[in-house]
Amino acid sequence: MELIQLLDYAGVAVFAATGALAASRKELDLIGFIFLAGVTGTGGGTLRDLVLGVPVFWVENHTYIIVCAVVAVLVFFAAPLVEYRYRLLLWLDAAGLAAYSVLGAAKGLEASGSAIVALVTGVLTATFGGVLRDVLAGEPSVLLRPEVYVTAALMGAGAFTVANVAGVEGAIAALIAVTAAFLVRGGALRFGWT
Amino acid sequence: MELIQLLDYAGVAVFAATGALAASRKELDLIGFIFLAGVTGTGGGTLRDLVLGVPVFWVENHTYIIVCAVVAVLVFFAAPLVEYRYRLLLWLDAAGLAAYSVLGAAKGLEASGSAIVALVTGVLTATFGGVLRDVLAGEPSVLLRPEVYVTAALMGAGAFTVANVAGVEGAIAALIAVTAAFLVRGGALRFGWT
Amino acid sequence: MELIQLLDYAGVAVFAATGALAASRKELDLIGFIFLAGVTGTGGGTLRDLVLGVPVFWVENHTYIIVCAVVAVLVFFAAPLVEYRYRLLLWLDAAGLAAYSVLGAAKGLEASGSAIVALVTGVLTATFGGVLRDVLAGEPSVLLRPEVYVTAALMGAGAFTVANVAGVEGAIAALIAVTAAFLVRGGALRFGWT
Repeated sequence: MELIQLLDYAGVAVFAATGALAASRKELDLIGFIFLAGVTGTGGGTLRDLVLGVPVFWVENHTYIIVCAVVAVLVFFAAPLVEYRYRLLLWLDAAGLAAYSVLGAAKGLEASGSAIVALVTGVLTATFGGVLRDVLAGEPSVLLRPEVYVTAALMGAGAFTVANVAGVEGAIAALIAVTAAFLVRGGALRFGWT
Repeated sequence: MELIQLLDYAGVAVFAATGALAASRKELDLIGFIFLAGVTGTGGGTLRDLVLGVPVFWVENHTYIIVCAVVAVLVFFAAPLVEYRYRLLLWLDAAGLAAYSVLGAAKGLEASGSAIVALVTGVLTATFGGVLRDVLAGEPSVLLRPEVYVTAALMGAGAFTVANVAGVEGAIAALIAVTAAFLVRGGALRFGWT
Repeated sequence: MELIQLLDYAGVAVFAATGALAASRKELDLIGFIFLAGVTGTGGGTLRDLVLGVPVFWVENHTYIIVCAVVAVLVFFAAPLVEYRYRLLLWLDAAGLAAYSVLGAAKGLEASGSAIVALVTGVLTATFGGVLRDVLAGEPSVLLRPEVYVTAALMGAGAFTVANVAGVEGAIAALIAVTAAFLVRGGALRFGWT
């Protein structure tokens, strides 16, 4: 499924960028940027693969690691510019959340066959990288922010799972669900939904 | 073994309740309650299953996830009442700690055959959910509290392992060990043992 | 490979000692010393084994757990003395970082065959125990300290991987790489490299 693979790289890249931005705010060195970008970009998917008992995605295919490192280097050199575009980055993060909630649900459904497990792995995949980023950077967890965040992830995972159980074709179900999650998170950013 | 299965659901439900209470103190929304209840209720057992290389319990049987969600919803609507009963909740937490220390040791002994590994998985299972809850809620780790906590978990895991190695029947060994752990943690709560 | 096994026990023991020292600064009881020593000593290697999908090292061989417990007891009774030798401990930590970065790279290379994955598992193994220690002890993450730390781990993992790919015999590659990592971290401690 082409779209799923694209979602995967997009999710990793976007979360890696938010990790690198956190490194920038903490004034870390280039290696610190790469470390935090890697942990944020791959953390959610790593936990998902571990609990599902499938091989960890970046051990199978190390392109994901290279994506994180390249994003970290780009953000390192563009940091002043990117911090000026913090609002843009929040929107990219919303795209990452949307992509990962659907990808996590798809992998969970495939590995376990349970819609309930799919909801959980969707939320885990979308949120755990950000949680790790915040803990490592010593900032309050994303969970405690007043804006809608976990709910948007649940929306994406839920929409995909329902569409899938209803027999909608995989790529179309993914497209609907990513859109749903992005609209919820985007609405929270745009209109301050809490 | 009926008792072990009961201990399992009881441990999940009670830890989930402490996670939901932490969500209540942080004034999270309903999804936040469910998220924190789920992480606290399943965190210790998830780490245990991962290190032992066995399938993660809630991926195998998603009833555990439903238990966490139901408990979170109940606490969400009963939150003012429950906060008034915080002392009761600490005692429920003691019961969860006791149940999980024994369950973790039993699973560790079964999977590895090593009494030392059983002690470690007993302590991990009983404490890791609470550690995750505190880190995510931005509160000081349970580890740093002056009261006896890890020691009670070690007591439960140790009593079960010793009784098991001595040939005591599983359910009876579990009953003795849960009681021992509960008495130690209960004594700490009642008499301020440090 | 004798040297690799030695590196392994040395890394566990030295990181366990830093965990016990953190417990000492937080004035925990003996069980708290053992808990924090165990988590710090085994945390990095546990994450490495989980992501590589190989059996967790201390479940396979519980000697590692005993090493952590013995180190914790020694530090508990020698705590005042050891705190006076904090500088020495930082150097021991540098030795642990060097040992673990190489060991992690060696295991990653063996399990995945990818040099890039080896770099990541080398850095993870060397740093994750310390990250857990800091999070659990409520101290700022090692990542945020200005001194060179992650870079030294990357140095060790990178030197081993390059030497290995270049066909250098395993024990010699390990010796070169441990020395490189130790010199970088030692230089940071001695000359304040940031």
